[in-house]
Amino acid sequence: MPNPLSIATVCLSGTLDDKLAAAASAGFDGVEIFENDLVGSSWSPKQIRERCADLGLSIDLYQPFRDFEAVPPDILEANLRRAERKLDLMAELGTDTMLVCSSVSPDAVDDDDLAAEQLHQLAERAAERGMRIAYEALAWGRFVNTYDHSWRIVRRAGHPALGLCLDSFHVLSRGSDPSGIRVIPGDKLFFLQLADAPRLRMDVLQWSRHHRLFPGQGAFDLTGFVQRVLGTGYAGPLSLEVFNDVFRQSDPGGTAVDAMRSLLVLKEKLGIGDLPAAPPLAGYALAEVASNDTGITDTLAALGFRATHRHGDESVQLWHQGDATLAVRTGATTRITTVGVASTAPEVLLQRAEHLLAVPAESGVVTPDGTTLTFTAELTDVDGEDNETDLLTGIDHVSLTAPFDVVDQTALFYRSVLGLESEPEAEFAAPFGLVRSLSASDGRVRIVHNVAMLRRGEWAPAVPDPQHIAFTTTDAIAAARAMRARGAPLLDIGDNYYDDLDARLAPPRLAELRECSVLYDRDEHGEYLHFYTHILGDRVFFEIVQRIGGYAGYGAVNSPVRMAAHRRERLNANDHRKFR
Amino acid sequence: MPNPLSIATVCLSGTLDDKLAAAASAGFDGVEIFENDLVGSSWSPKQIRERCADLGLSIDLYQPFRDFEAVPPDILEANLRRAERKLDLMAELGTDTMLVCSSVSPDAVDDDDLAAEQLHQLAERAAERGMRIAYEALAWGRFVNTYDHSWRIVRRAGHPALGLCLDSFHVLSRGSDPSGIRVIPGDKLFFLQLADAPRLRMDVLQWSRHHRLFPGQGAFDLTGFVQRVLGTGYAGPLSLEVFNDVFRQSDPGGTAVDAMRSLLVLKEKLGIGDLPAAPPLAGYALAEVASNDTGITDTLAALGFRATHRHGDESVQLWHQGDATLAVRTGATTRITTVGVASTAPEVLLQRAEHLLAVPAESGVVTPDGTTLTFTAELTDVDGEDNETDLLTGIDHVSLTAPFDVVDQTALFYRSVLGLESEPEAEFAAPFGLVRSLSASDGRVRIVHNVAMLRRGEWAPAVPDPQHIAFTTTDAIAAARAMRARGAPLLDIGDNYYDDLDARLAPPRLAELRECSVLYDRDEHGEYLHFYTHILGDRVFFEIVQRIGGYAGYGAVNSPVRMAAHRRERLNANDHRKFR
Repeated sequence: MPNPLSIATVCLSGTLDDKLAAAASAGFDGVEIFENDLVGSSWSPKQIRERCADLGLSIDLYQPFRDFEAVPPDILEANLRRAERKLDLMAELGTDTMLVCSSVSPDAVDDDDLAAEQLHQLAERAAERGMRIAYEALAWGRFVNTYDHSWRIVRRAGHPALGLCLDSFHVLSRGSDPSGIRVIPGDKLFFLQLADAPRLRMDVLQWSRHHRLFPGQGAFDLTGFVQRVLGTGYAGPLSLEVFNDVFRQSDPGGTAVDAMRSLLVLKEKLGIGDLPAAPPLAGYALAEVASNDTGITDTLAALGFRATHRHGDESVQLWHQGDATLAVRTGATTRITTVGVASTAPEVLLQRAEHLLAVPAESGVVTPDGTTLTFTAELTDVDGEDNETDLLTGIDHVSLTAPFDVVDQTALFYRSVLGLESEPEAEFAAPFGLVRSLSASDGRVRIVHNVAMLRRGEWAPAVPDPQHIAFTTTDAIAAARAMRARGAPLLDIGDNYYDDLDARLAPPRLAELRECSVLYDRDEHGEYLHFYTHILGDRVFFEIVQRIGGYAGYGAVNSPVRMAAHRRERLNANDHRKFR
Repeated sequence: MPNPLSIATVCLSGTLDDKLAAAASAGFDGVEIFENDLVGSSWSPKQIRERCADLGLSIDLYQPFRDFEAVPPDILEANLRRAERKLDLMAELGTDTMLVCSSVSPDAVDDDDLAAEQLHQLAERAAERGMRIAYEALAWGRFVNTYDHSWRIVRRAGHPALGLCLDSFHVLSRGSDPSGIRVIPGDKLFFLQLADAPRLRMDVLQWSRHHRLFPGQGAFDLTGFVQRVLGTGYAGPLSLEVFNDVFRQSDPGGTAVDAMRSLLVLKEKLGIGDLPAAPPLAGYALAEVASNDTGITDTLAALGFRATHRHGDESVQLWHQGDATLAVRTGATTRITTVGVASTAPEVLLQRAEHLLAVPAESGVVTPDGTTLTFTAELTDVDGEDNETDLLTGIDHVSLTAPFDVVDQTALFYRSVLGLESEPEAEFAAPFGLVRSLSASDGRVRIVHNVAMLRRGEWAPAVPDPQHIAFTTTDAIAAARAMRARGAPLLDIGDNYYDDLDARLAPPRLAELRECSVLYDRDEHGEYLHFYTHILGDRVFFEIVQRIGGYAGYGAVNSPVRMAAHRRERLNANDHRKFR
């Protein structure tokens, strides 16, 4: 019998009815009812119980009950009264486990015996109703803030209705060693809450309340942690408890699917899932751009692409160069519509994506950023021959965009469906605000998402969210020269950039970089030369990149310069149009 | 000769041309050119110099130059080469002061003598060109991270072209005592950068890069700090350097005005400004709602207001009860249009607002949240008599909304124009995301702003940003009963709330609170009873509040419950309409 999958209502946006519907729709087995969600609901506990039953959801936990233990007698009496009210409510709700988190109260004292004794009393009251108490050490608990400390108190209390709740955030945020979990008997682990988080150097309470993520979206070793817990024989739910400012205000349907996907991938890593394994990728089969702007095809021609025909679809034209294939489809709005990957087992990729709750599309799936992802058996080799004069050798990366409130689920989606590894995240100050740049790669297929953080839209650049496709070359300077000679609309980079580059890095061939508007970066592995086209159809541009040595990034340091140059080019073009 | 007012280009969003135009338009005397802004600009340094001259802006500083001092000889040589390039650029730019911030480089060593010696060399190179070096201790500098340490090095270097740059953030974020500033001769203080910030428990580098605010918007004692600096005889610019994620992406025109306003208020606090002092307020003269929804006036009647006429404007009806006056104006969109305050010297308030760059409006000014603020000599006493059966005694507060990216400037605007004091900020998790609640008060006039953080708009409650007016009563339960009896559309609160309230606070008269849907809160000073109407015209609702004792808040703990209830009421109303 596998561990049920559960989610705390606090993970999701909306009122309780929205949250329950979203959890059920994403396939969760149960929920933790977060007190504030119940307090704000017009449904009685009995109605909530009925609604959950209708949706096929068990109510696995009621939480949180705060500041209970290790207090003077008068406060204990008030706390027991408070607890009795909540146990009454739980009886109506039809749930049997209450989470009690370690006290942060100024009324509490540092006395493990007293805490154990008072928790024993509470457990006794719960046991009388056939209920039980799961005690959890908050990472910022006043006296009890590590799991081993909470376990000592539970063991000392020695009541069968008192056990532990473990929360991965509280354990891993403090850097506690989870290997001690193996000394806890599985039947004394009453509940397991899971949350990931980015590594942030900040107050742990604020970190916990605002920045938790679903497993696999942060920096914690959730796999190792859950392995320890399952090793004890714990048979209860794997339950998500994620406080996240963005999830709190996003469509709960999407968040619940994202949450479930994170658990499916976690189970795969634990070796207990039934996901079809991701087969290796051969590379990009193609990228497709929809547009009615002839600038796209004119530019492809000037970049050295050759147009060919595709059988059976008049609205699509295929362009080819080296191993790069670009499809251009008729479409009123210019955007990257499809990313096609090639694999030895495309049907397994599709099955895997469907297991991961992807929305099906023709020969592939729709991703959370709206792009279609297709799976084919082979690289698209349209004309069957490579041309010796080709300037470009393939696709290096595809750079997409996503609103800030779906980017974490978008990144998880691409990684988990395609079996990519996350790369270090970049954050940079662009002229119009901060940009987060997330990427994932298997060395052949690289997917980048650039996200404008906090964007509200009233004050924005000429092109708020451009997408681009980057092609590889073995000689960026020669390629730029040849493309300019053919009239390609390449982006001009100002002298200030090269003067600064000279001061900072003094790169080789500076004069040629400057002459050709080729940008430059360097890391400990190698060098990166890259240049850009104008923005076409108000949305899409192309990049040409040369990786020398093992350069691992995407030239993020140069992105603000590119953005300023693109804006200037757009304003000039608009002025030109105005006066024409 | 007063200290000039300056702003770093990094404070503002956009490309360099946007930033310079905004700074000039807000009346700044000069700018600090932030290197990245110049590197991304297509204007040559000479063109930037000319543009600034045209705009009447001096270029007061070029910044930052990083990781210079206390390094081995080969790196010193490279650093001097790098510095020479930047001094060349400054010559073209026509600025004479370069900011060098203390090193964070792994190549640096902990050797003050070496740092002083190398800075002396740099200062010598600058002096040859008639330029100078302002050395600044970053709060996270590797070896030099306090202003007194940077001063010891500058003194040791003993070069006339080497002085200090002080930055309030770097000093105050570390809790350094600024009183030591008085030992620094004013002519060795080459530059002063000002930034405020909220008190955050996080990594100081991240705090500095993302969360700085303009003076008066955070928790630092900027007044005391600047007093110390001016006490040395420092005669240079008061220059803002604020890294803020929100300002980075907001309209730079609004941000620059906000920035200037913060400096004008700071100068007033320093006793060196020329702002007309804020006269005391007598209270609210009125609040005006625009609406064509008869629900507004029906509700006012049921709350016990009496309609009267206003001379000369047919489109406005005045409603009166106790000291509360509400104007209802014909208008297609329901919203709070005007807040009127009464003062003994309304003309001084108006002058003050104009000095603070407020946009003039009829008998008042337009605030950054779009509401009009009017100033009158007296409370509006429409019918000249109070009715003994009045349930309401006056206006307690007006609660407005603002997008998250203008709320800090909005709050500063109300406070500085009206001379209010900030109250503690509340943050709570509402059903549809986090809400920040900012308020300011002088004990008579209270202005609240509720701000949905991170809202993107695709997933939102039935009413995303309601505004409300809160009236005072001396008996909330009696008022709720009487108003319900008259058919007022009061908001129903579910039993779960009262069950939880009983468990938490066990308030007196719980049964009556429950019966009348009156919410309850308590603080160390007193109690707060309050209830709400439905949302009217899709935007505005009314609150009735009873403050007992010195309760200081606004019942924020109950706001999520109110929001869930309002949503339920709206959905029910929509269902009703649908089936009608």
